[in-house]
Amino acid sequence: MSGVAVIGVGMIPFGKYPGKTISDLAWPAVKAAVADAGIEPRRIQAAYCGTVFSGMMAGQRILARIGLSGIPITNVENACSSSSTALRQAVLAIRSGEIEVALVIGVEKLTKFGGGTLPLEEEDWEVRQGMVMPALYAMRATRYMHDFGLTKEQLALVSVKNRKNGAANPDAQMREPVTVEQVLGSRPIADPFTLLQCCPTGDGAAAIVLCASSVAQQVRSDPIQVRASDLTSGRYTPGYRDMTIPEITVRGAKEAFEEAGIGPEDVDVAEVHDAFSIAELLYYEAFGFCGRGEAGPFIESGATQIGGKIAVNPSGGLLAKGHPIGATGAAQVVEIVRQLRGECGARQQPGAKVGVSHATGGGIAGFDHGACAIHIFSR
Amino acid sequence: MSGVAVIGVGMIPFGKYPGKTISDLAWPAVKAAVADAGIEPRRIQAAYCGTVFSGMMAGQRILARIGLSGIPITNVENACSSSSTALRQAVLAIRSGEIEVALVIGVEKLTKFGGGTLPLEEEDWEVRQGMVMPALYAMRATRYMHDFGLTKEQLALVSVKNRKNGAANPDAQMREPVTVEQVLGSRPIADPFTLLQCCPTGDGAAAIVLCASSVAQQVRSDPIQVRASDLTSGRYTPGYRDMTIPEITVRGAKEAFEEAGIGPEDVDVAEVHDAFSIAELLYYEAFGFCGRGEAGPFIESGATQIGGKIAVNPSGGLLAKGHPIGATGAAQVVEIVRQLRGECGARQQPGAKVGVSHATGGGIAGFDHGACAIHIFSR
Repeated sequence: MSGVAVIGVGMIPFGKYPGKTISDLAWPAVKAAVADAGIEPRRIQAAYCGTVFSGMMAGQRILARIGLSGIPITNVENACSSSSTALRQAVLAIRSGEIEVALVIGVEKLTKFGGGTLPLEEEDWEVRQGMVMPALYAMRATRYMHDFGLTKEQLALVSVKNRKNGAANPDAQMREPVTVEQVLGSRPIADPFTLLQCCPTGDGAAAIVLCASSVAQQVRSDPIQVRASDLTSGRYTPGYRDMTIPEITVRGAKEAFEEAGIGPEDVDVAEVHDAFSIAELLYYEAFGFCGRGEAGPFIESGATQIGGKIAVNPSGGLLAKGHPIGATGAAQVVEIVRQLRGECGARQQPGAKVGVSHATGGGIAGFDHGACAIHIFSR
Repeated sequence: MSGVAVIGVGMIPFGKYPGKTISDLAWPAVKAAVADAGIEPRRIQAAYCGTVFSGMMAGQRILARIGLSGIPITNVENACSSSSTALRQAVLAIRSGEIEVALVIGVEKLTKFGGGTLPLEEEDWEVRQGMVMPALYAMRATRYMHDFGLTKEQLALVSVKNRKNGAANPDAQMREPVTVEQVLGSRPIADPFTLLQCCPTGDGAAAIVLCASSVAQQVRSDPIQVRASDLTSGRYTPGYRDMTIPEITVRGAKEAFEEAGIGPEDVDVAEVHDAFSIAELLYYEAFGFCGRGEAGPFIESGATQIGGKIAVNPSGGLLAKGHPIGATGAAQVVEIVRQLRGECGARQQPGAKVGVSHATGGGIAGFDHGACAIHIFSR
């Protein structure tokens, strides 16, 4: 089974682009990734496009636009994990020996909905009953605060850290740093969440060029190795479930660490799915970056700041970089690759050697029918 | 690289099910495929769901419903090739060595749109100009009739053959045989097409269980081998293009035959993408089942009837079995597998050993940004 490496990444700054089409958004990201890889576009043998709301044949439309056509193109949808699932398909295709070089695209245009809740599925009965994502995560936050004594101030620190990181990231949608007071004083959304504890809506695109490790070594001196590529789905569990334990991430992280042959203590930098402030704290524990119930003191200690034990969401995460859902997973990988190459300037985690990307989403917050994709990279 | 075999198939009769959800449609097909495979559901290690209009996380919702959860589930969209592209992802995953047993689902509910044209993409400027699919294929038919002297009666024979086959298929949406006179006398749609030369709209689901060949041999005595799994996309070609040559299928067929190490003369049964009557004739030539310009006399000779040299669309094809787009590719494979096992009763192609499935679609009828998936199977 061939090793797989990332040789090129690119993205556009996340934001609101109501006048642009899906292709308008994606082609600059693809061009940047191909240029970064330093290979002839014709060496790309297959493409995988992750998106949720881009309609039929998004990948084909994007690549026809830039003359990359004729190759097998597959569009992949897995809610917030769409483009990280697309990455996994590319990894499997390379491991199968069928192809050597692949392109992954993540793209989404949420401004086309004009704000508010995203379109509902016919079967989303939880959402119809009011169980929208902010409400669900607010319940998890409330329970966690009750069980472990997490304070509102500790919770707000997630937004403060990620907005600080986003301020140093030219690709981030929200680039103003904020204080704990500003976070807690912003408009209430679903108690305990205020506006600044919820990720913004927006548009974006990101792209990744990856290849068999044998090819990567010929192309550039610093390929980033894919050490693990894991996808899992939620399990239906009747009866009591502890909503402060994101089971799907716990299981996916365990599988990914096993595949990579490393543990959480080896990770220098992580992009985790902080759609709401509490989410990042739950994922610290799910990955084993800290112990159960310790996430509050852990963030307060500065351990997850850039320069700390493990920099979490140095890009600004979903809270600051933004969350155009189909683009999110690929953009996380863009950041991890740049961190492992040491290209991140003011937001660089010093000496980063091992990085993790984590995208999760879907129905009932990933419990029953969610999808969680985790990748581990090393330089 | 492991060989791959199909060990179970299932589908529901295609038709109009306005009261059913995506899960309602799909779970009986999945249950049938798993029962047909004769394996424990827990042996399935990954699932791929092909659909276009089922919204977020269709595969996860379907499999949560029947207790098949926790495994990696990937939703795939490639217009009319969605579930055949999903099949290809499953094949690659098995060939990579990552998994041994996979499930493929194809599902679509078109009745939710209440008839008429399917939702348009923002960038579908051809369609906005009136270049809807029936119009486009009507132009191709008109050109082909001009160039090669195809008669309206020969064109109508495609519908007559496929409706005859559909009458013998309990899973077909249209089960009444029709005559040439009835075809030509039905309501005009886009000259030369009458209503009976256009596939119906509807709902449906189909499922496939496949696995590494080494596992297949332990499970059942008659696994069907996947000899080729090919996906390609359209090429942007400025200037003149001959619209009677479906370039994407020509190229895909060539690649697939090379992979399988056989030629068109070896094929006993084929399910090709007959969305309109002319399409089937163009695909005869694209696959090399007959020579250029010979499709009219070829169908007239009875060569593509059941019992002929090569039975084409013994299921009834899209024209009679129906075309719930995300389900179509998987349903073609259901038919080919049943034909190669000799299970098709009144519509059985005698002694069928090698079969082909072919799903193609997307923008500008597959020219610039279409997708075409071709699989070759043998018993």
